[in-house]
Amino acid sequence: MATIQDIGVSAAINILSAVIFLLAFAFLRLQPINDRVYFPKWYLKGTRQSPSHGGAFVRKFVNLDMRSYLKFLSWMPAALQMPEDELISHAGLDSAVYLRIYLTGLKIFVPITILAFLVLVPVNWTNDTLEGLKVEHSDIDKLSISNIPFGSKRFIAHLTMAYVFTFWTCYVLLREYEIVATMRLRFLASEKRRPDQFTVLVRNIPPDPDESIGELAEHFFLVNHPDHYLTHQVVYNANKLANLVKEKKKMQNWLDFYQLKYERNASKRPTVKTGFLGCFGSKVDAVEHYTSEIERIEKEEAEEREKIVKDPKLVVPAAFVSFRSRWGAAVCAQTQQTSNPTVWLTEWAPEPRDVYWDNLSIPIVHLTVRRLIIAVAFFFLNFFYVIPIAFVQSLANIEGIEKAVPFLKPIIEMPAIKSFIQGFLPGIALKIFLILLPSILMFMSKVEGLTSVSSLERRSASKYYIFLFFNVFLASIIAGSALEQLQTYLHQSANQIPRTIGVAIPMKATFFITYVMVDGWAGVAGEILRLKPLVIFHLKNFFLVKTEKDREEAMDPGSIGFDSNEPQIQLYFLLGLVYAVVTPFLLPFILVFFVLAYVVYRHQIINVYNQEYESAAAFWPSVHGRIITALIVSQLLFLGLLSTKGAGQSTPVLLVLPVVTFYFHKYCKNRYEPAFVEYPLQEAMRKDTLERAREPGFDLKTYLASAYIHPVFKGEDDEKFSMMDEGEADQVLVATKRQSRRNTPVPSRNNGSEAPSMPEIVNDQRL
Amino acid sequence: MATIQDIGVSAAINILSAVIFLLAFAFLRLQPINDRVYFPKWYLKGTRQSPSHGGAFVRKFVNLDMRSYLKFLSWMPAALQMPEDELISHAGLDSAVYLRIYLTGLKIFVPITILAFLVLVPVNWTNDTLEGLKVEHSDIDKLSISNIPFGSKRFIAHLTMAYVFTFWTCYVLLREYEIVATMRLRFLASEKRRPDQFTVLVRNIPPDPDESIGELAEHFFLVNHPDHYLTHQVVYNANKLANLVKEKKKMQNWLDFYQLKYERNASKRPTVKTGFLGCFGSKVDAVEHYTSEIERIEKEEAEEREKIVKDPKLVVPAAFVSFRSRWGAAVCAQTQQTSNPTVWLTEWAPEPRDVYWDNLSIPIVHLTVRRLIIAVAFFFLNFFYVIPIAFVQSLANIEGIEKAVPFLKPIIEMPAIKSFIQGFLPGIALKIFLILLPSILMFMSKVEGLTSVSSLERRSASKYYIFLFFNVFLASIIAGSALEQLQTYLHQSANQIPRTIGVAIPMKATFFITYVMVDGWAGVAGEILRLKPLVIFHLKNFFLVKTEKDREEAMDPGSIGFDSNEPQIQLYFLLGLVYAVVTPFLLPFILVFFVLAYVVYRHQIINVYNQEYESAAAFWPSVHGRIITALIVSQLLFLGLLSTKGAGQSTPVLLVLPVVTFYFHKYCKNRYEPAFVEYPLQEAMRKDTLERAREPGFDLKTYLASAYIHPVFKGEDDEKFSMMDEGEADQVLVATKRQSRRNTPVPSRNNGSEAPSMPEIVNDQRL
Repeated sequence: MATIQDIGVSAAINILSAVIFLLAFAFLRLQPINDRVYFPKWYLKGTRQSPSHGGAFVRKFVNLDMRSYLKFLSWMPAALQMPEDELISHAGLDSAVYLRIYLTGLKIFVPITILAFLVLVPVNWTNDTLEGLKVEHSDIDKLSISNIPFGSKRFIAHLTMAYVFTFWTCYVLLREYEIVATMRLRFLASEKRRPDQFTVLVRNIPPDPDESIGELAEHFFLVNHPDHYLTHQVVYNANKLANLVKEKKKMQNWLDFYQLKYERNASKRPTVKTGFLGCFGSKVDAVEHYTSEIERIEKEEAEEREKIVKDPKLVVPAAFVSFRSRWGAAVCAQTQQTSNPTVWLTEWAPEPRDVYWDNLSIPIVHLTVRRLIIAVAFFFLNFFYVIPIAFVQSLANIEGIEKAVPFLKPIIEMPAIKSFIQGFLPGIALKIFLILLPSILMFMSKVEGLTSVSSLERRSASKYYIFLFFNVFLASIIAGSALEQLQTYLHQSANQIPRTIGVAIPMKATFFITYVMVDGWAGVAGEILRLKPLVIFHLKNFFLVKTEKDREEAMDPGSIGFDSNEPQIQLYFLLGLVYAVVTPFLLPFILVFFVLAYVVYRHQIINVYNQEYESAAAFWPSVHGRIITALIVSQLLFLGLLSTKGAGQSTPVLLVLPVVTFYFHKYCKNRYEPAFVEYPLQEAMRKDTLERAREPGFDLKTYLASAYIHPVFKGEDDEKFSMMDEGEADQVLVATKRQSRRNTPVPSRNNGSEAPSMPEIVNDQRL
Repeated sequence: MATIQDIGVSAAINILSAVIFLLAFAFLRLQPINDRVYFPKWYLKGTRQSPSHGGAFVRKFVNLDMRSYLKFLSWMPAALQMPEDELISHAGLDSAVYLRIYLTGLKIFVPITILAFLVLVPVNWTNDTLEGLKVEHSDIDKLSISNIPFGSKRFIAHLTMAYVFTFWTCYVLLREYEIVATMRLRFLASEKRRPDQFTVLVRNIPPDPDESIGELAEHFFLVNHPDHYLTHQVVYNANKLANLVKEKKKMQNWLDFYQLKYERNASKRPTVKTGFLGCFGSKVDAVEHYTSEIERIEKEEAEEREKIVKDPKLVVPAAFVSFRSRWGAAVCAQTQQTSNPTVWLTEWAPEPRDVYWDNLSIPIVHLTVRRLIIAVAFFFLNFFYVIPIAFVQSLANIEGIEKAVPFLKPIIEMPAIKSFIQGFLPGIALKIFLILLPSILMFMSKVEGLTSVSSLERRSASKYYIFLFFNVFLASIIAGSALEQLQTYLHQSANQIPRTIGVAIPMKATFFITYVMVDGWAGVAGEILRLKPLVIFHLKNFFLVKTEKDREEAMDPGSIGFDSNEPQIQLYFLLGLVYAVVTPFLLPFILVFFVLAYVVYRHQIINVYNQEYESAAAFWPSVHGRIITALIVSQLLFLGLLSTKGAGQSTPVLLVLPVVTFYFHKYCKNRYEPAFVEYPLQEAMRKDTLERAREPGFDLKTYLASAYIHPVFKGEDDEKFSMMDEGEADQVLVATKRQSRRNTPVPSRNNGSEAPSMPEIVNDQRL
């Protein structure tokens, strides 16, 4: 049992390390040489140039202005000054709403903390149960519910507070949902024209022997959306080409590296070995080698480009279909096209930069199977991940290594190395796994076949949350791996489980306080230091950078990392809500986390992170849903705890809470979730009307022409792959190759293939 | 433990009673006087007239043709002869697909029965575990899994069969889903024009101080669906008027009754007392009294009709909006209209006769609360219904009655009456509850606010199924009321529950065999006899019928009663799937039920039931879902059973089944459910195009004008309440009362209210 003194020491250490991080940051950010590490966002925006204060050469690298060091926390108010509207236009709605998660945390927990300290702490403190029991206990336990005697009437205070906290949390959530929904709608209604407002992603276009995918799509939409269809963009399977481009870039980097080396030391031409990892094979001149490699890849690339244009097999059965108006696109995206719901699937096109191209070609029948496989795999990952790690750990001990590589025995037996292996190696397998976990989860989400980066991140985030819930939260409380928990859940009765967990909760408060300080405080302070990007930037800057453009590319602004950061915030919501009634002493630590994280991330969003996509806060429903989950978990655990405290008669009173919370969630879902999923026709019509009145002659087709081409085609050969390639989009009367069937509209087996036989009738109607 | 002899006796009794019912039916249906009871469907269709074989007077009432009695089962082949397409056009798709539920049962269980008898029965029979144990057992138990020794290798046979049965069931379900979906699509695509194909139900039209609901709706849709909007029909709150009409009809019935009485016995004018239930108050002349009553009601009715037309408060904030094309309606029904998802809610209009008018005015914010209340109420009804019944039963004993009404004591103490009360009264409370249950569930569904009769019936059916599952299936197996079960579920661990239930399953086989015979065989045979409608028809015929029209109204054809009948079929699916592996001896009894029920209901659907609405088989997804539920339950219970039989190592092998079944369900849901929820645009466009080509000048507006008026307005004053009342629907340029705001399109707080200020712009664009 940790005493307040222990906590104090721990807090001091963590505050100290946080302060060191912040000081280091304050120092490093002022050095001009690090400018691109700490302010990349501004470089990307083009409003900041590499520092070139006239003056001395050294000034380019080191800041000699002593006064600026004195105000080493000046970034904090600066980070808070930018108003929200400016933030949205500077960094996008996603970033602004992401910051609101921290704000929501503050809004929920500041009043709860005050109330808990005013009401619950005195109620808990003025007992002497723990002293009477003569068990070992700390002062923190005296502040917690553990200090209330069995069956006491004082539990009424906790019960009331459980109600108050629930209603307050729900109220804040409701308000926030409303605010975010309004922000999203305002953002979507904002004046800027965007290609995705007019475009629908169509997947699973059924194959047709007579027509190409492009023709098929055009005919289908000309028939079924005659007044609205504008143009379309077929999707090419350019995965191989993308790989070539990536390889070329790698080679180019090596070439730059050796050229720089040669320039700096002109006396000796650098050489390289052609074999595996540059360690084996014959020695050749490095510059020549890489130049010829690049030429080879360029040739292959050109061939591949030719092939993509010519080979119809490289056209994916998907297309981006654009409409004349937002209304037309909104209609198409929200309706079912054919009677077979597995073909001609329409959904809103993601933003061009948000598209995850690799998954566009997956047929829908595979999706169910893929999801099943991933669900099973995730189940095992969640509950059984300890098994392979234990296996690796069993190998990674002294005896295991000595057996596997006997010739290393003399080295391993050296005392220093031996103690290192014994003390460090077992943990390293787990550490590597935890570092790799977000990537594993992202890989799983990719297998599931989602088509936009934003939805991939959302999916990974929910997987990560589940993992944290079982393997950090519950595992710490009942001190068992998720696998052992699974045993418990299967073998214990439904009303025993919350009791088992609930009883252990007050005892783990000190552990979680330490956790919040290490993971929350120091972790967030570490985030602002950006140690890894700092090192990598300087390495690249030294070895690779030749031109200003190279330097641009050497910057790694990173992004918010919704898939791994949001679940971690959610863990704090969970801890806060669970401990609010039980051990209010934990709440201030969480408050500090929220404040610190809010400031730090606001700074990072303004100065560092580069937004990868704009989903217009599409993630809020899952953020909301997870806070609701945390609330219900906290209610059930509190119920379990109270029923072991001789307050079993409170169970029905407390059971009301989860039921009401669940229906509150349903209400919110009905009321606000559509704003994140659908696109109302009224809004679409309003924007269309306004825009037509303002810019009557706007050429939408040209505007949309190259919006949705694969990034590897960007720039050089837009025209070749763009929507304009068929040059016949203006012809409303479509020429079809199926002359024989032209005037006999018999229903064909294939749903899509009948479409082209009908445009004549449609056009007769319209003329 | 019942032996095969006991089962034989029980079977003989039930078969005998079924045969008696069938014979009685065969006799009664041949009597011309009963013609309207057994063939009302044909009268309603107008293809059958009251029997008037020339000949003798007696022939009108009694069938004297002796030969017809010999072929007393001749209705059976007749019922089977009508081909499915004809059946669909005769009785609707709902009825035809309803019959497919029985067919599905046969398709699933015939091969399963054969396989189980070929494989499992020999495997079970050739053991002597039960004899070795020397426990009391019957021959049926020797055929069941109970006869396999603990930990035997023979369980592999059962395991394999569990897999085979699962895959067969899934295969049949998949095929049936596909067939039904195709039938539905073909039905919807069939040539007949129907008002609901063009119409969308709009709910929660936000109030506006300047315009009436009708104007508001017109303006909104003219702006947001300018090319497609045709006309609309406001909904009046005519609940009071409907009550008046109902009351008038009752008075008319009494008037008819007394007039007939007077005609038959002209010597004495009938009198009636005006007080409560005709028992108290002053005596008046009956004919005069009811004539004046009817006059009074007619006056009130006329006033009410006037009021409805004039009072804007009696206009419900909902409207039926019709479009020029199916395409336009499909678009509007499937999209969100405004950014506030709680106003301007659109959904497909139900068929006119399917509309449940009373619920059209419920605001959407109430719906969540109503659902919460009903969910809680249903939870208590399901698990706690025994409590009030036990309370009533405790009152309904001798002492209770004697205390309540002491003056009855001498009568009650009479031995005959006493034994009657003791033996009968306690059961009667339960019986009354069970008879009332479907009505209670329907009432609950109505409170939930659904707007069509078909969806009300579907909702009630799922409630009833849950009730049957807990209170008949599980209550019979573990022999506890649902309340006691709830205790078990809460106090037992998750893997103990299927074990507890699984172990009890083989022991209850004989009970369920008897249940199938009583409830299934005799019940279905009783259904065809239609005893209650028979009696009521003859009573009405004698007392009320004056004209041919009265006789028409005295017929009570009834309908399938999806809400109470379908869950009962599902119980047989559940029993069949659960016992298929455990006690295959039960399967033939279920087969007999399915065959008998199929023939009987096919006969009833052809000759008796009057279809109340046409939902185009919208209920199939829930039928499918419940069979899947039954399958998963059977798998889990079998898993629990095996784990107590020393075959615990089979658990992982069996756990695969529910997971795969669940994902099979998800696959089916993705693949086929949209066909029951959405309306594909391609189909809509195809029908529109064909229809326009065939009937270019069709006046859709007149056709739709009176389709969606409240049934109480039907006939007499169509024009007054129909869509044409405003006479300005053709004006595309809408005159609005808000002159001041007309040219200033500032976004107003209310989402709906901005709409009318924009048509000018829209029209400029279109001209």
